[in-house]
Amino acid sequence: MTNRIRVGIVGYGNLGRGVELAIAQNPDMQLDAIFTRRDPATISSNTKAYSIEDAEKFVNDIDVMILCGGSATDLPEQGPQFAKMFNVVDSFDTHARIPEYYEEVNAGAVNSNKVAVISTGWDPGLFSINRLLFEAILPEGNAYTFWGKGVSQGHSDAIRRVPGVKDGKQYTIPVEEAVQRVRNGEDPSFTTREKHLRECYVVAEEGADLEQIRETIVTMPNYFADYDTVVHFVSEEELKKNHSAMPHGGIVLHSGKTGENTTQIMEFGLKLESNPEFTSSVLVAYARAAYKLHKEGQAGAKTVFDIPIGHLSPKSAAELRKELL
Amino acid sequence: MTNRIRVGIVGYGNLGRGVELAIAQNPDMQLDAIFTRRDPATISSNTKAYSIEDAEKFVNDIDVMILCGGSATDLPEQGPQFAKMFNVVDSFDTHARIPEYYEEVNAGAVNSNKVAVISTGWDPGLFSINRLLFEAILPEGNAYTFWGKGVSQGHSDAIRRVPGVKDGKQYTIPVEEAVQRVRNGEDPSFTTREKHLRECYVVAEEGADLEQIRETIVTMPNYFADYDTVVHFVSEEELKKNHSAMPHGGIVLHSGKTGENTTQIMEFGLKLESNPEFTSSVLVAYARAAYKLHKEGQAGAKTVFDIPIGHLSPKSAAELRKELL
Repeated sequence: MTNRIRVGIVGYGNLGRGVELAIAQNPDMQLDAIFTRRDPATISSNTKAYSIEDAEKFVNDIDVMILCGGSATDLPEQGPQFAKMFNVVDSFDTHARIPEYYEEVNAGAVNSNKVAVISTGWDPGLFSINRLLFEAILPEGNAYTFWGKGVSQGHSDAIRRVPGVKDGKQYTIPVEEAVQRVRNGEDPSFTTREKHLRECYVVAEEGADLEQIRETIVTMPNYFADYDTVVHFVSEEELKKNHSAMPHGGIVLHSGKTGENTTQIMEFGLKLESNPEFTSSVLVAYARAAYKLHKEGQAGAKTVFDIPIGHLSPKSAAELRKELL
Repeated sequence: MTNRIRVGIVGYGNLGRGVELAIAQNPDMQLDAIFTRRDPATISSNTKAYSIEDAEKFVNDIDVMILCGGSATDLPEQGPQFAKMFNVVDSFDTHARIPEYYEEVNAGAVNSNKVAVISTGWDPGLFSINRLLFEAILPEGNAYTFWGKGVSQGHSDAIRRVPGVKDGKQYTIPVEEAVQRVRNGEDPSFTTREKHLRECYVVAEEGADLEQIRETIVTMPNYFADYDTVVHFVSEEELKKNHSAMPHGGIVLHSGKTGENTTQIMEFGLKLESNPEFTSSVLVAYARAAYKLHKEGQAGAKTVFDIPIGHLSPKSAAELRKELL
């Protein structure tokens, strides 16, 4: 390895810290700088931190910037802006807004002649790859995505907004019987309620009406009303001790028919002890792909659908054919 | 859809018939001709059959040729030869000889300015994609491939060569406990015997020494000696009734660590009622990709590692971003 890929991180939360740890596992890459909106002096890392305002000074020193901000407000601004200066990778995950985000980032990247990999991670990302793969190979079939068991940040936030709730965590849990029915090739139709359960661990404020809190949660539209929801009240201590981790995962399942009426089942699954660390590892592999695509002379926004899988590996095409095909 | 992709099949065995059925499921493709080494008049299909010698007359009429011959003798000859004339796709699966086969096919395809997708199917093929994906994302981890439950053609052939055996089928079966240990993140080391069982259904010739047959099978080097092997003697009728199908499948599992010491499990699995029909469906999806790559001006031999997943779908990149990301 002569030249290592020089990486920068934009945003140093759970995802940014995960990227830092993932780069340390990849000898062909090095982390050169962290960019933050906070005071850089407050960043606790062995890598030097800079104000995000100074990023543009690094255009010749960073090969790929990994954008680790959130999809609600950070990325819609940072994605198009950084693509005007750097090869970038992000995990933009607001599914409904991906087409418009793609166009904005693409405009920046085409202009700068850089590569911008958007919306990678595991969903969107690896799950998307498998949804496409399964549908292309078994066009006469049905796809099913199950999420969990894992912590849903959005649902946990929704719980914490309920009056009388001090803190809370929500787990999304696939209904095991539903998963088994697809695996058995039954090709079933499910209501929302039949696919996932929601389990909530709630710390109530002192003197709060627990029954009222439970009722508000389980009837909450969009978030809980369409699901079977279980609410457990726990102490602040117990929540911290048993529910601080961020596990997640899920399954993409496809049941299709070939030939006369032959059942074929395809499945992709993840069981993650840390959702943000895993997403970070995916971002780092795609940062390598962005670097390779740029070296090949490509430019513009790319998704996981546009990138040959071989580009994710540090190995050469000949090594990959010999070792992994 | 203005122009459908015009496909030809070379070789009309299980795989060729599967390709014919798979093309019927894909409205953007049409099967125009079958090429065979047999007398074309003996081919029972709605599609016109021709002698394989006449294939060269179709260079302007076929967009992609799907090579459905075997890896032992057919493809080493047909792959390089057809790549000199057509975009081709094959399922060459002699893992150890892939690098040399790649070079030979590549020479033909570069010369003709066509695209040749080699060694696709599920292993090599989809399993290879996942081995690479898992290793690239979780470099500190271990990969495990389990095959089955399914019929192994090579092992069934080995049984049938044993003196006193009239017919037989062999099932490769993953050891469920071994699979579970990987799923639990134990990161175990396995002997060959600990990963797979072999189950044989054998029809003996009249008066044959059954114990001698059993002993010859279970001690056969390379094929059975390193495994726990069960031999069942059955009637010819029972073998035909219960063991004529060609199910197969398997699992690629990867257990890796991120961050400090966080366990992350990735899994890809197939449960196939018909191994050849599924392989055919994969070949057809990659035929579409070969066509698209050729349209883009690419040429040469390609593997599943070189091809963007989006090229497998009939949908446009914008549709894919909107619907499947």
